Amino acid sequence: MSRFWIDKISGLKPYVPGEQPTSDSLIKLNTNEHALPPAESVLAALRSASGEALRRYPDPTASALRSAISAAESVPPDQIFVGNGSDEVLAHLWFALLKGRRVQTLDTTYGFYPVWAGLYDAVLTEVPVLEDFSVDVDTLKNDDAAIVLANPNAPTGRALTRDDIALLADSNSDRLVVVDEAYFGFGAETAVPLIADHDNLIVTRSLSKSHALAGMRVGYAIAQPDLIEGLIRVKDSFNSYPLDALAQAAAAAAIQDTQWLENASREVREVREVMSAGLRAIGFEVLPSQANFIFTEHQSLAGRQIFDALRARDILVRRWDKERIENWLRISVGTMAQAEQLLVVMREIVSAETG
Amino acid sequence: MSRFWIDKISGLKPYVPGEQPTSDSLIKLNTNEHALPPAESVLAALRSASGEALRRYPDPTASALRSAISAAESVPPDQIFVGNGSDEVLAHLWFALLKGRRVQTLDTTYGFYPVWAGLYDAVLTEVPVLEDFSVDVDTLKNDDAAIVLANPNAPTGRALTRDDIALLADSNSDRLVVVDEAYFGFGAETAVPLIADHDNLIVTRSLSKSHALAGMRVGYAIAQPDLIEGLIRVKDSFNSYPLDALAQAAAAAAIQDTQWLENASREVREVREVMSAGLRAIGFEVLPSQANFIFTEHQSLAGRQIFDALRARDILVRRWDKERIENWLRISVGTMAQAEQLLVVMREIVSAETG
Repeated sequence: MSRFWIDKISGLKPYVPGEQPTSDSLIKLNTNEHALPPAESVLAALRSASGEALRRYPDPTASALRSAISAAESVPPDQIFVGNGSDEVLAHLWFALLKGRRVQTLDTTYGFYPVWAGLYDAVLTEVPVLEDFSVDVDTLKNDDAAIVLANPNAPTGRALTRDDIALLADSNSDRLVVVDEAYFGFGAETAVPLIADHDNLIVTRSLSKSHALAGMRVGYAIAQPDLIEGLIRVKDSFNSYPLDALAQAAAAAAIQDTQWLENASREVREVREVMSAGLRAIGFEVLPSQANFIFTEHQSLAGRQIFDALRARDILVRRWDKERIENWLRISVGTMAQAEQLLVVMREIVSAETG
Repeated sequence: MSRFWIDKISGLKPYVPGEQPTSDSLIKLNTNEHALPPAESVLAALRSASGEALRRYPDPTASALRSAISAAESVPPDQIFVGNGSDEVLAHLWFALLKGRRVQTLDTTYGFYPVWAGLYDAVLTEVPVLEDFSVDVDTLKNDDAAIVLANPNAPTGRALTRDDIALLADSNSDRLVVVDEAYFGFGAETAVPLIADHDNLIVTRSLSKSHALAGMRVGYAIAQPDLIEGLIRVKDSFNSYPLDALAQAAAAAAIQDTQWLENASREVREVREVMSAGLRAIGFEVLPSQANFIFTEHQSLAGRQIFDALRARDILVRRWDKERIENWLRISVGTMAQAEQLLVVMREIVSAETG
């Protein structure tokens, strides 16, 4: 606390990201990083960009990256905004489009939403998800408040269909619908094709999960040009060049490598099924996931107990001290070898505690 | 304009950075990039960091980078805040410490200050610099408003001494003094040693100029821990990881390579003297600069005319349509070869127009 802080600062409740241990001996399944390393094409792009040109400022409009996204998503470049991870994209979005306004989200979703609401004085309503963590779209329809949805949702992994999103966007065309597709690429439908017909829809993406580039901090938004221009105006009033030259080069190469995305996504989905089936076989409920993680609860063991037992055996997963989900664990989909190791350890834990 | 923009967005006047032409045939002296490429130690650090680990999130606290800064600046790590360029550091600083408050700056200084003031509703007073673009510290003393100074100042290149800064900070200990040392490393005194005794002082730095890393977007702030904590609270409510893994690795290597900084700084100062002397010899007034650029006006030719003539000969410099400085050019210090080429062309322009 300093006498120089503006009043608001003491009251902020910053987001706390998952632990990033420096030890390599851990099996790290706590922050939904991709199981695979980035594409070789990305590493090649980085090698060729890591030279003398770094003395120059990067392109403030990231035009090569936006062109790559334009081609991959079949949307014009003026419908694309890029930023330092989808977190920065969403922060600017909360400022430009939600500051001081009423906003709906879910009671079980990405923990950064209430933080941005607090930073930018939005009035947040958290609508409860159903008992099985699914979302009843009918209860969300026809409201005047803007709505922010993670799809697939985190930490549940459950996804709405494109038709669900269309229903929301159509239910009130003066209502802004924000769809956070950070977990795009692992099976869920994207809302991007709806943008051409919906000027009240904005979709955000991250390269952290789908493209195995959490280390490079690149995200983007897709919407009609006037919404994108609002984001650009805030960004250009904040920091002209949030994406460094290497992040731009890596992200453009990653987006262009559609074959890598397809193969990597298939591999994640295969491991996800093995993990889910293996856990179900020893008494876990596992929600159907369309993300690169699963959300799971054991029928008789407490979440805290399993979390600690895994940690003692060098496996790190994520858990929240939040009443509704305190018994649940979010486990990232690792490699097949990590999934098998997880299952071996889980069987030991379950038989030791229940047997 | 979109019906979804909050009211403020239409009124923002975003910062416009200097042009970043893609052509390599230009001599680019318009955005104060370093004349030299980054240190070989930086490129080596990038090569070793550009691998599979990029699938992982970077360290949200950038602890290795902050340790490197701590060693180089002789301040504890809890007095260091890092961000995506000093622009992001300053943006968070305007939010955490200046939002809604009265702030003094100069009428001729970095053009981003009024933009942040507008974004964060600060009430800005622009104090005129003297006729020769120097600053009368006495006129700035004893005010209650916070003060933000670029030192050396841009676009003038003139610097205040450490004693000047101490005088300001001592004149009212309840007044926040922000010293933006983006152009540190080219001869000016730093205010960092004053921080131990001044809890109302905060110094920001950039690696874009001094360390030839404009392409990597790294900056930092140094202040006593309670001011730093205010910045951390805003950053962690905005974007947990604004520095990607490669930016952290490059910046840490750059900061550690103190020998490179010393040599590169000497080379810039040598070229700066050659440029300045050569221009003075053909009728230019050149302000004494402690930055990696000079600010200059010709005794008989208009700034616009020289700017256009240089542009026609593939030399890009910076100029503003702002009454007080409309006749002045800001010219980055390039390599010795670029300086010689600039002088050849300037002599042609001056003799064609005045002869």
